[in-house]
Amino acid sequence: MLLKKNIPIGYIFGKIKYEVLFVAIYGIAIEIIYQNFHITSISIPMTIHTVLGTIISLLLAFRSNQAYDRWWEARIVWGAIVNDSRTLARQVLSLMNDPYDEDAITPFKHRMIKRQIAWCYALGKGLRKNDPMPLVRKYVSAEEAEFVDEFDNKHIGLLQLHARDLNNALKQGWVNPYQQVEIDSTLTRLCDHMGKCERIKNTVFPSTYSLYIHLALHFFILLLPFGLVELFGFLMVPVLVVITACFFLIEKMAIHLQDPFENKPTDTPVLSISRNIERDLKQMMREKHDMPTAMAPSRFYIL
Amino acid sequence: MLLKKNIPIGYIFGKIKYEVLFVAIYGIAIEIIYQNFHITSISIPMTIHTVLGTIISLLLAFRSNQAYDRWWEARIVWGAIVNDSRTLARQVLSLMNDPYDEDAITPFKHRMIKRQIAWCYALGKGLRKNDPMPLVRKYVSAEEAEFVDEFDNKHIGLLQLHARDLNNALKQGWVNPYQQVEIDSTLTRLCDHMGKCERIKNTVFPSTYSLYIHLALHFFILLLPFGLVELFGFLMVPVLVVITACFFLIEKMAIHLQDPFENKPTDTPVLSISRNIERDLKQMMREKHDMPTAMAPSRFYIL
Amino acid sequence: MLLKKNIPIGYIFGKIKYEVLFVAIYGIAIEIIYQNFHITSISIPMTIHTVLGTIISLLLAFRSNQAYDRWWEARIVWGAIVNDSRTLARQVLSLMNDPYDEDAITPFKHRMIKRQIAWCYALGKGLRKNDPMPLVRKYVSAEEAEFVDEFDNKHIGLLQLHARDLNNALKQGWVNPYQQVEIDSTLTRLCDHMGKCERIKNTVFPSTYSLYIHLALHFFILLLPFGLVELFGFLMVPVLVVITACFFLIEKMAIHLQDPFENKPTDTPVLSISRNIERDLKQMMREKHDMPTAMAPSRFYIL
Amino acid sequence: MLLKKNIPIGYIFGKIKYEVLFVAIYGIAIEIIYQNFHITSISIPMTIHTVLGTIISLLLAFRSNQAYDRWWEARIVWGAIVNDSRTLARQVLSLMNDPYDEDAITPFKHRMIKRQIAWCYALGKGLRKNDPMPLVRKYVSAEEAEFVDEFDNKHIGLLQLHARDLNNALKQGWVNPYQQVEIDSTLTRLCDHMGKCERIKNTVFPSTYSLYIHLALHFFILLLPFGLVELFGFLMVPVLVVITACFFLIEKMAIHLQDPFENKPTDTPVLSISRNIERDLKQMMREKHDMPTAMAPSRFYIL
Amino acid sequence: MLLKKNIPIGYIFGKIKYEVLFVAIYGIAIEIIYQNFHITSISIPMTIHTVLGTIISLLLAFRSNQAYDRWWEARIVWGAIVNDSRTLARQVLSLMNDPYDEDAITPFKHRMIKRQIAWCYALGKGLRKNDPMPLVRKYVSAEEAEFVDEFDNKHIGLLQLHARDLNNALKQGWVNPYQQVEIDSTLTRLCDHMGKCERIKNTVFPSTYSLYIHLALHFFILLLPFGLVELFGFLMVPVLVVITACFFLIEKMAIHLQDPFENKPTDTPVLSISRNIERDLKQMMREKHDMPTAMAPSRFYIL
Repeated sequence: MLLKKNIPIGYIFGKIKYEVLFVAIYGIAIEIIYQNFHITSISIPMTIHTVLGTIISLLLAFRSNQAYDRWWEARIVWGAIVNDSRTLARQVLSLMNDPYDEDAITPFKHRMIKRQIAWCYALGKGLRKNDPMPLVRKYVSAEEAEFVDEFDNKHIGLLQLHARDLNNALKQGWVNPYQQVEIDSTLTRLCDHMGKCERIKNTVFPSTYSLYIHLALHFFILLLPFGLVELFGFLMVPVLVVITACFFLIEKMAIHLQDPFENKPTDTPVLSISRNIERDLKQMMREKHDMPTAMAPSRFYIL
Repeated sequence: MLLKKNIPIGYIFGKIKYEVLFVAIYGIAIEIIYQNFHITSISIPMTIHTVLGTIISLLLAFRSNQAYDRWWEARIVWGAIVNDSRTLARQVLSLMNDPYDEDAITPFKHRMIKRQIAWCYALGKGLRKNDPMPLVRKYVSAEEAEFVDEFDNKHIGLLQLHARDLNNALKQGWVNPYQQVEIDSTLTRLCDHMGKCERIKNTVFPSTYSLYIHLALHFFILLLPFGLVELFGFLMVPVLVVITACFFLIEKMAIHLQDPFENKPTDTPVLSISRNIERDLKQMMREKHDMPTAMAPSRFYIL
Repeated sequence: MLLKKNIPIGYIFGKIKYEVLFVAIYGIAIEIIYQNFHITSISIPMTIHTVLGTIISLLLAFRSNQAYDRWWEARIVWGAIVNDSRTLARQVLSLMNDPYDEDAITPFKHRMIKRQIAWCYALGKGLRKNDPMPLVRKYVSAEEAEFVDEFDNKHIGLLQLHARDLNNALKQGWVNPYQQVEIDSTLTRLCDHMGKCERIKNTVFPSTYSLYIHLALHFFILLLPFGLVELFGFLMVPVLVVITACFFLIEKMAIHLQDPFENKPTDTPVLSISRNIERDLKQMMREKHDMPTAMAPSRFYIL
Repeated sequence: MLLKKNIPIGYIFGKIKYEVLFVAIYGIAIEIIYQNFHITSISIPMTIHTVLGTIISLLLAFRSNQAYDRWWEARIVWGAIVNDSRTLARQVLSLMNDPYDEDAITPFKHRMIKRQIAWCYALGKGLRKNDPMPLVRKYVSAEEAEFVDEFDNKHIGLLQLHARDLNNALKQGWVNPYQQVEIDSTLTRLCDHMGKCERIKNTVFPSTYSLYIHLALHFFILLLPFGLVELFGFLMVPVLVVITACFFLIEKMAIHLQDPFENKPTDTPVLSISRNIERDLKQMMREKHDMPTAMAPSRFYIL
Repeated sequence: MLLKKNIPIGYIFGKIKYEVLFVAIYGIAIEIIYQNFHITSISIPMTIHTVLGTIISLLLAFRSNQAYDRWWEARIVWGAIVNDSRTLARQVLSLMNDPYDEDAITPFKHRMIKRQIAWCYALGKGLRKNDPMPLVRKYVSAEEAEFVDEFDNKHIGLLQLHARDLNNALKQGWVNPYQQVEIDSTLTRLCDHMGKCERIKNTVFPSTYSLYIHLALHFFILLLPFGLVELFGFLMVPVLVVITACFFLIEKMAIHLQDPFENKPTDTPVLSISRNIERDLKQMMREKHDMPTAMAPSRFYIL
């Protein structure tokens, strides 16, 4: 996630520098042709640009909107992961009871909660196509890590371990059947969340949609100097460059928003969120040693 | 689902080649009339195109948006199918217990999970109007296949077999009543998902809506050369062709997005998703032999 | 629901023929005044139309969108009715058991499922302000029909009979308390669905909203010839007619979409959906005799 | 809720008569200045209006959309109140049983259902800032009315009486614990509905948003005659008036839609809906005497 | 939340005074250059502004829409907090019973309900980065306050105390297992609500999105005088200022709406809502002494 401040200019404009450079040269060429060779017939009124500009603007605006929706949905899902991780911890801590000895099952409870922390990191890392196992091993036993490692999606394995523990808890009488079902429905929600993240990750934004807008936009830009040539003289070039930059930047912005799990500064900050979950859950376990600090942002973004 | 890369140019433009060809000829004809016969009065200012272009652009943009929503909803439903297939498998594996002999009901559990795999394939094939029975037979017994075959919608039959097995499990004491109800609510969600897919499949996008936009767009295109004729000379033809192509491509794109179960490259990749579900569920059953590979995409799309 | 094909031209344009005829005459009159009496000062530039056209186009587009949302919501609700009818049938068939004699309660189960079929037809007919009782009588006993007939909304009566039967089933021990509550929550969802349909049926789309758009659109059309008169000569009339038709058709389309239970070709096809529910539920009961065929569409629509 | 027909012209245009009158005078003044004093330099091309018109149209359209969404949400909530009132009545009638004497608890059931009717009226009246107590007293005992009267929000008091009765029913053995929880979740939904209504009632539509659109719109209108003055001569005044009316009416319409509980003709018809709930619930209780008629609409609206 | 009336002009325009001042000077400078030095070639037609204005207007409108959605979601969440606080109080009051002595657990119930009041204040204060502990101490015991103070997010601590009390209530037999699960699901919803608020608080609106619109808007404003210079003479300056103000105000409005927990007049009125919750809950406890008054608004807003 980009922060509000400190975004370097290089980052902002770096993405479009080649396009803009090309357009500048292209504009200068046309201006030269127009002025030096007096081929004034290439000047055309801008009405054609108005018609074309309207449809492109609309599609670009709608497309930004859809990209924003994907980005926001990804954030909503991770917000829900925060909520259900806390809920799971609360339910584990307060619904599970050993009728004979209050503290006997504390290690069991803490094992589940730490596994939940591992699950968050595993999902975050997995979505970004990084290996989650090193982080997972920090929070679960070697035996469990081995079990998990056999899965394509490590987070499915972790959830299955949750389910197995929950089943055990019922057999031991630590939860009653209604409580088991209630906690199981929390697991179901976690399962939904991870599926939603995978859906956003794995679904390519409709290629033809992006492509047609991209082509139409380029065609519009190519036509633009013919409308400007008469009006501005050589001042046309900076004007052309700025207009081009406006349109290209908006297109690029949509492209970044629409894929929020790509290890880029515009990503949903899954690791930072996971770290906060870790802090919350450890505070709920009242485990004060080994408390991680909140993740410090890099210069202009947090991951 | 189209991939990000490798989309052949033939695929992109193939859909509109006849329209564009016709428009090109039409434009040339008008240019000839204008230039050779000096009927300059046919030239009209483009303001009329601005007014018409605005309403058409807006409708086209809204319509793309609605088509996108259908496409995205189809993908969301299949994402939810992934989630609830995993949830069903998790619940079957962890909630069902034989109090006397842990392993006695493993075959029973595996039968249900394999039937769930069959359900996914059956739904995917059925939506595309392919015969799902060959695939279904691979995952369920001959007897069950026969039962299922009597249904119009094979997936309803499979779900009913799930319900029957679940009822049996209660009678045998493998699940307690709360667990039965909890698993039954997973079946209810699966039933909702298949109904949502059928709804998207069976509901024609409002014909008049498409038609009026289509007609207005054609009228707009027919009027366009009269606005361009004066400005560009014979350069009008490529400009006309590109503008036409922009509008037609966006219309076509919307048409493809709005029907996501048609055996076309823009489809929701139901078979590929089903294959991933198969892999996940088999890993949950720890059934390593007979593990299918993830579906390889064809050159520029996956189904 | 209109089908994709075969929509007769008369149907498409029939709705606006008087408006268009009037506009044609109006346009001719203005052209005559302009040309014969040389009152050229009535010609005005089209910029005013651009401003007015933008706001009207926007409102028309948003309004089409809202009408589309109503239409789509109606279809979603009927999709949910399909889902929950199947769910009810599944739950009745698999959750209800006579502990002593499996088959003893089959007639009871079938009575509930047939009543559910009646409920669908009753709701569909009722929404269209047709008398649902003839169809209801085909699926329930005379006694129940009499009970139902005393209600304003027959579907409420049928749902209450469901509830009464469910209560009986608990007393007889055919369902356990959790199962009763689970099936009752299916009834709650059915109750929600019928309420949603009634809401769409009974809520007039904001009259002032429609009216202001309607008035603004007419004013825009009335102003249009003054902008066109100079540009096209008598060619203005067909151009004027086509533009008018575009705008009017889009308005009409929105009006049709926004009221989906009016016995018109653009309706949500509630009877056809109910027929499919009947087929599905009868197949679930394995009642092969008396199986209705799927409803054949009329020439260009299904109801 | 306004009906489809019979809306008096006075109602439609009454809201904007002073604005329009002022604009007419203003337009005439400018025309006089232009024509009599020959200060033609005040005429400006309309392009500036196009730019300004686009942003104002967009904001007005989006804002209408948001106002529509509030209005539609209010209607959806009241639709859900219908549904859950019916559900509560169904659950009370069919889930509550006295194991010894079927009819012994009928008065108790009817008391709850009548209180639900009171709840609907109380909520509707309360939202409109009318005193709900006279109506409430018609449906509940004096003792209960006194209890309720101590609450700021009478509907909260009624809901608490529901909860108390439900608790009693459990103690008496009229419902089992699962049924209690199921009915309690219906109360929770009712609690949500009333909160949603209060949210819509109490949340001022962002004042700055309305205000900036309002100011921009006025500025646009003030600038408009300078664009029209050259084109139309004194015909400008009616054109100006109509354009102004279009924009102002759309703004006013949005203002009315956004506040649906204000005792105005555009309100959500909460009393009429409550009356229908009363009819439905009394039919469910089979209480035929004392059946109210459906509320007759006033000339062009129902409340 | 801003009220409908009394918003001081200083507040409305204060936010943009420096921008507007700069633009005014800038416009005057250009006018002087144009008129005094007769460099008329700097005048350009406004078509370029139309194209640029369309895309900027669209993006600004969509962005206002997204900001509005955030603001409205924040309000919806706080509405849901009202609902679930009431629901929790209702459930605590009516579902919890001591089988032997009705009144014995009243202090216990009141402790939970007061803690719920504390939770609302703690969340509201915490979101605004104020210290919630002084307010929290007013409603919970010193011991509980100490427990809570160890959490980063005080509201998580309060929720955990709820869960612990609920667990106690089950052990004491004051609630049965189904009731515990039902109340626990209310806690889960409260946990969701607080997570949603934190999500809105902590998620920066996409910086690049804001930034690109901001840049494009400034570029558009910088270009504007060149279009106006020829048309208006020195009248250009006020026109320029007003147009600039329109665009800037709309941008500022979006920026305020998108961050609703910042201790600003446009905030969601979390303290005022919490106060109303306190009143409702105290009335439900029938605790008439110590009843706070509803929060009086400051001159033009409530917090």
